[in-house]
Amino acid sequence: MNDQPKVKARQPRGLADRGPAELAAADRMLAKIRESYELYGFEAVETPFFEYTDALGKFLPDQDRPNEGVFSFQDDDEQWLSLRYDLTAPLARYVAENYDKLAKPYRSYRAGYVFRNEKPGPGRFRQFMQFDADTVGAASVAADAEICMMAADTLEKLGIRRGDYIVKVNNRKVLDGVMEAIGLPDAPEHHQRRLKVLRAIDKLDRLGPHGVEMLLGPGRKDESGDFTAGAELDAAAIARVLSFTAARKATNAETIAALEHAATGSQRGLEGVTEMRDIAAFALAAGYGEDRILIDPSVVRGLEYYTGPVFEAELTFGVTDEKGAPVRFGSVGGGGRYDGLVGRFRSEPVPATGFSIGVSRLFAALKLIDSPIVSAGSQMGPVVVLVMDRDRVAHYQAMVAKLRAENVRAELYLGSAGMKAQMKYADRRNSPCVIIQGSDEHAKGEVQIKDLIEGARAAAAIQSNDEWKAARPAQFSVPEHDLVNAVKDVLARHA
Amino acid sequence: MNDQPKVKARQPRGLADRGPAELAAADRMLAKIRESYELYGFEAVETPFFEYTDALGKFLPDQDRPNEGVFSFQDDDEQWLSLRYDLTAPLARYVAENYDKLAKPYRSYRAGYVFRNEKPGPGRFRQFMQFDADTVGAASVAADAEICMMAADTLEKLGIRRGDYIVKVNNRKVLDGVMEAIGLPDAPEHHQRRLKVLRAIDKLDRLGPHGVEMLLGPGRKDESGDFTAGAELDAAAIARVLSFTAARKATNAETIAALEHAATGSQRGLEGVTEMRDIAAFALAAGYGEDRILIDPSVVRGLEYYTGPVFEAELTFGVTDEKGAPVRFGSVGGGGRYDGLVGRFRSEPVPATGFSIGVSRLFAALKLIDSPIVSAGSQMGPVVVLVMDRDRVAHYQAMVAKLRAENVRAELYLGSAGMKAQMKYADRRNSPCVIIQGSDEHAKGEVQIKDLIEGARAAAAIQSNDEWKAARPAQFSVPEHDLVNAVKDVLARHA
Repeated sequence: MNDQPKVKARQPRGLADRGPAELAAADRMLAKIRESYELYGFEAVETPFFEYTDALGKFLPDQDRPNEGVFSFQDDDEQWLSLRYDLTAPLARYVAENYDKLAKPYRSYRAGYVFRNEKPGPGRFRQFMQFDADTVGAASVAADAEICMMAADTLEKLGIRRGDYIVKVNNRKVLDGVMEAIGLPDAPEHHQRRLKVLRAIDKLDRLGPHGVEMLLGPGRKDESGDFTAGAELDAAAIARVLSFTAARKATNAETIAALEHAATGSQRGLEGVTEMRDIAAFALAAGYGEDRILIDPSVVRGLEYYTGPVFEAELTFGVTDEKGAPVRFGSVGGGGRYDGLVGRFRSEPVPATGFSIGVSRLFAALKLIDSPIVSAGSQMGPVVVLVMDRDRVAHYQAMVAKLRAENVRAELYLGSAGMKAQMKYADRRNSPCVIIQGSDEHAKGEVQIKDLIEGARAAAAIQSNDEWKAARPAQFSVPEHDLVNAVKDVLARHA
Repeated sequence: MNDQPKVKARQPRGLADRGPAELAAADRMLAKIRESYELYGFEAVETPFFEYTDALGKFLPDQDRPNEGVFSFQDDDEQWLSLRYDLTAPLARYVAENYDKLAKPYRSYRAGYVFRNEKPGPGRFRQFMQFDADTVGAASVAADAEICMMAADTLEKLGIRRGDYIVKVNNRKVLDGVMEAIGLPDAPEHHQRRLKVLRAIDKLDRLGPHGVEMLLGPGRKDESGDFTAGAELDAAAIARVLSFTAARKATNAETIAALEHAATGSQRGLEGVTEMRDIAAFALAAGYGEDRILIDPSVVRGLEYYTGPVFEAELTFGVTDEKGAPVRFGSVGGGGRYDGLVGRFRSEPVPATGFSIGVSRLFAALKLIDSPIVSAGSQMGPVVVLVMDRDRVAHYQAMVAKLRAENVRAELYLGSAGMKAQMKYADRRNSPCVIIQGSDEHAKGEVQIKDLIEGARAAAAIQSNDEWKAARPAQFSVPEHDLVNAVKDVLARHA
């Protein structure tokens, strides 16, 4: 193999390796979320990393080629497979395939990586983790209310204070009413423009009303000069859409009244308003006021499969953006009702609603507020037994085995470097102490224990190299048969 | 969406969904392995699910097309990417890319799914989990000995008794000596035949000496009639290879002596024998005798990248195979030294050794010996609040919220079915009790608690339906404000 030309060691763009501190912190965060979801009766499920492309609904319209946004490949039967793009489509496949086996309504959660075949950028990855919870088989918006409460509870359990987050609720049916009113009812020929309207509104937070107005109308050129085509609505239609997104008032009750007014004449729109009223009432009865669950018509969620309530969990505390301007931290998750997704596979309709957390966004937020759940702390490393005499490696290995047998994390230095490099290695490993046995100590049946934590403290207080050599602080000899107990004493001192 | 033709909900072949009991059991198993590895000073690392195909070394020889055994796709720059095939090649890329940042020797572990684009079969999946541990930057076979000891410790921590497993050790250099002797030295023109020899020996356990003899010679037709081409060795060469694989004697010392004899004349072969002697000595000094770590020349491991010691962890207890014949459970993991893999990326050679557990094989073994770590146990489900009056859903939801606020797992019945179906749902959810409040109870400010565990016991003892209706065992009323405490009492009774 060494004759081959050297290959460059490079990670593909938009991917990330993760080390021990980050993995441990992320695990603690995920465990908290799981705990919160299980309290609500949700249970774990795991589906594979890829599915048939048709099961994900990811073929390009009228073509036998998968959507470019997903990573796709063909199997030995020439069937198209795609890496999962989110955790919702695989759940829909799972539920449809196991429908009769599952107790319904079926509440489930799952965390896992999803993959997007898109240009990566700062904070935009091609592999990232989502944590989803879904309730399948419940048509009542009590299920939607429950998911909003669960999102609120979960954020608080992660250390985000009440007042620093808000779960916003809107309803696609109301927006559908507005679409009907501007001449874009739900029909295949309007599909593309409806999607453009949705995506335009979804950018309200980022672009402001003027930017959205451009995207609803002729289109918008961004700062880099890239042009995004608009939905080509006329002025009256744009005004109607913007008045809808701006319908949020001081209280949930007033917002609902304003929406009721905006939806006048559309049966579907009024149905949506009733659902929002019910969600607010369910939440309030369970003790979740509008300081936590808020009706907000500016929330639309870009995905086209939502059919009713949609939610967004936002962190409201301030941060500075890349240009140094103060902004809210923003969304860490969202979801909504998708009554059509499972129905793609079955003859009867199957109602469903869910919520998805963007795990790395949430992780970044917890870092920012210095949540103890994700704070690294400096974990103590293993005890290192140094190799002083090469021909006594077996003896050193026996020492390490004795330490481990007593549940002390320990390792033998396995490299070929000298004493100085071995000490440096122990430092980098964050070792509490090293064990040293040269031939002199061996002859006396002793080992030296060097306490690196105490030693670092002492070093800070000592003036000169000579003084150091004379004192040799934090280093002491013990009979070899006392090794394990002496090491345990050192560990206990620094615990 | 409902206008589209229905899509069939089907999981691609060779993949598996996993439910809550299996996930929880697997998590407990993985946690034990992690704990064992961390005691040895190994630390966690995670790499992405795909890599550049060239970094995995998975292009077909002399072609720009990836190996058919891996799932591959092109990114927007038309570079080939492949889903990881194992966890070793990505680690090599990671270490090479982060070489100067890592304290060396670098011990790390990681568990994760890997993917094979191969025909699935019984027990053969296209996505499956491996749990790997590797030491990079240690040329000494003390590192190999350590990994063998760690494998033994880990199996014992998982509840596999000493005597029910064995870690077998061999060395590729000895086999290389044999290959030299039969005229197949390590050179490109012998590559294919050497690989065939390796794979033939690797099947010794499954096919027996005669099957291996066929594969070393003219080839072998299996029971289904499929023909596997042989390595085309002559009779003397076959005899020499088989005498090597049969060199295992009653003790490690005798086996090593026999191997020394077999390797006479090959410097590389004798080097391998010395390494095996050192590993056995290191292990013995640390207290691991040949009841746990055994020199066995029949172990070769099929992968071509191994360069020195190779290991295999076998479970020796008996099971019956698919034909009902008694067999040993067999391998649950293996590994070896691969000094060339990291070196593919760097100008200097980088020694490395590692061990990989086949997670689902090990999981199956723990199930078989009824290890408490993976035993499902019947986890108690959530308390279910039934919906008796549709117009009081908000009130029921408030009850559920009160239970959860006191850390009681609880859910509201979210479906639209009647009382009988709701009770059946609670049963399927394994609920300890349900909460019932019809309009009568509501008028009196009471709730009914039905203890389903006690109820099931009572039902077994009661003769007739009438008797049941008269007694209503395990069902009682409490004032609504006592709900949480009364439920906690029921849970405590069944804890």
